[in-house]
Amino acid sequence: MPVLSVETLRTASEQTFVRAGVSKEVAQHVVGLLIRANLAGHDSHGVVRIPGYVDQLIAGRIVPDAEVEILDETPTSARLKGNHHFGQVVLARGAEVAISKSEQAPVSLVTAYQYSHCGQLGAYAAMLTEADRVGIVLLGKQRGAVVPAGGKSGRLYQNTLAIALPSTKPFPVVLDMATCVAPFGKVLVRRARNELCPEGWLVDADGNPSRDPFLDFSAGEGGLLPLGSPQVGHKGSGLTFVLGILATALSGAGGQGEGTLIMAVNPAFFGDPNGFREEVALCVDYLNETSPIEGVDRVLAPGERSYLESRRRQAEGIYVEDSTWDKIQELASV
Amino acid sequence: MPVLSVETLRTASEQTFVRAGVSKEVAQHVVGLLIRANLAGHDSHGVVRIPGYVDQLIAGRIVPDAEVEILDETPTSARLKGNHHFGQVVLARGAEVAISKSEQAPVSLVTAYQYSHCGQLGAYAAMLTEADRVGIVLLGKQRGAVVPAGGKSGRLYQNTLAIALPSTKPFPVVLDMATCVAPFGKVLVRRARNELCPEGWLVDADGNPSRDPFLDFSAGEGGLLPLGSPQVGHKGSGLTFVLGILATALSGAGGQGEGTLIMAVNPAFFGDPNGFREEVALCVDYLNETSPIEGVDRVLAPGERSYLESRRRQAEGIYVEDSTWDKIQELASV
Repeated sequence: MPVLSVETLRTASEQTFVRAGVSKEVAQHVVGLLIRANLAGHDSHGVVRIPGYVDQLIAGRIVPDAEVEILDETPTSARLKGNHHFGQVVLARGAEVAISKSEQAPVSLVTAYQYSHCGQLGAYAAMLTEADRVGIVLLGKQRGAVVPAGGKSGRLYQNTLAIALPSTKPFPVVLDMATCVAPFGKVLVRRARNELCPEGWLVDADGNPSRDPFLDFSAGEGGLLPLGSPQVGHKGSGLTFVLGILATALSGAGGQGEGTLIMAVNPAFFGDPNGFREEVALCVDYLNETSPIEGVDRVLAPGERSYLESRRRQAEGIYVEDSTWDKIQELASV
Repeated sequence: MPVLSVETLRTASEQTFVRAGVSKEVAQHVVGLLIRANLAGHDSHGVVRIPGYVDQLIAGRIVPDAEVEILDETPTSARLKGNHHFGQVVLARGAEVAISKSEQAPVSLVTAYQYSHCGQLGAYAAMLTEADRVGIVLLGKQRGAVVPAGGKSGRLYQNTLAIALPSTKPFPVVLDMATCVAPFGKVLVRRARNELCPEGWLVDADGNPSRDPFLDFSAGEGGLLPLGSPQVGHKGSGLTFVLGILATALSGAGGQGEGTLIMAVNPAFFGDPNGFREEVALCVDYLNETSPIEGVDRVLAPGERSYLESRRRQAEGIYVEDSTWDKIQELASV
């Protein structure tokens, strides 16, 4: 149960990809984003993914030297076709293009498809804030395990919305949320631990509440409840429905694929850009000043907890479970 | 308890505004949107608002011949200052500008502030679909009665998100949702009826669940719970926080005012625009085919229920409660 320094984890992790035929530059980029997720406390999107990524590299499902094609380009938009490159590479390129196209224009829109798992979506929205843009990023599919309000079985995907705002605080505001109560990854954790899910996450094949993490959604056995369930599940249901269409139909991902939409808004075209960043910081202050309920120290802004956790883990190291660290070391030394 | 034809209701309603000094053209426009809400089944945003609007006209808080100023204009953006014109006029103008600016460009962004109550937000998103655009509309304030996750009292506003997609169906997909479990208007209905609210809507001054519709939020007595409460209230809380900043800080509404952001995306720049509309329709079909729970005929797409209800009421007439109809007739004949 090692607690590793960022450098130790980074060196070994990069090596796993280099050994699998990935260029040093791409390995650094992908590992940087994985470790960023670990630092932020989102371990499920961190280095635990490396063995799976290496499997995909070996199987040819990730093509680490693919050309990321730019299609349908205009001065303020583009459609990226990833040709099975890493999600981390394709979406970071998308963020760069969105930034560049919102230099001389107030808003740009870049879509992407045909890429592998991209990790934490909020990271790409946050990249836009480094150039003082507002970042709005949607990732979605048309079909999945989320049960629409009024329905019995999983039909819609757990589409994700990330919005990031630059601020004069030492961190950007970053909202990063899936549109269901609990995403499938959390069900898998319960499955692995042989534990029941909390109430409110799932329904069974008859549309009744269930706590069974072993339901086979793909066989029509119920699914994940949408955000707002049980009272206003139509909100989460409707939100995931429209986000799924936007992410796929504007990217070219189609009915079966996953697509992403990256929008950059340049506040400089709507007033003083420093004023915008200061206004965001004032809103964070106002939120922080909320009188907290018992057991809560301070009401935090979206992204603030990840920032605080990153600082802590940067100093104290990152805990990685034995099985993952053993596997990384093995893959690094093959 | 009259059931009125659309024409009877329209004629009298327009007359109330004309009598209050509003031009025929503006009266037609505002009444058209109010009746559209009644037709869609959203009576709380319909002609019940007319007496309040007339009061505001008389008090000079709505200025029905104000100039809607266009500030910070670029080829793909603008900031509208309403100068206290009707919300219906300012936001419809915003939608027109967004459409026009996304004719030669894939995406445009128009913000607006200083306008009166605008009615149903989804109507403006839907206007964009009439020009085959995707419409994304946010309305918000920075402060209000929504309790942030981890907090005790109302701090954030019940910011609203509307997303509309053109389709080859006889109706556009229109999502229109406030980011709390139940908006304040629903609490007011309970207050008027002297009925308790359902569980899950409110907390009291100590942050404990409450069903009391008489809580005085402005005096710090609790507030409205965010979407996702109680399990994942941080999602609704985070969403309303970022939407409130976007709507105000990009419009110039500032910390106390209300602002709106209207974004138009032109699918023609991302592929075949008919293909987009067809893909939306296929997604509606797929959703409609979901196996429904008992008591539900068919799982509907966002906006579909309003469309069906509009057709029904267009044929059968609109029910208006006596007090509202009496008041409209009185104001029409002053």
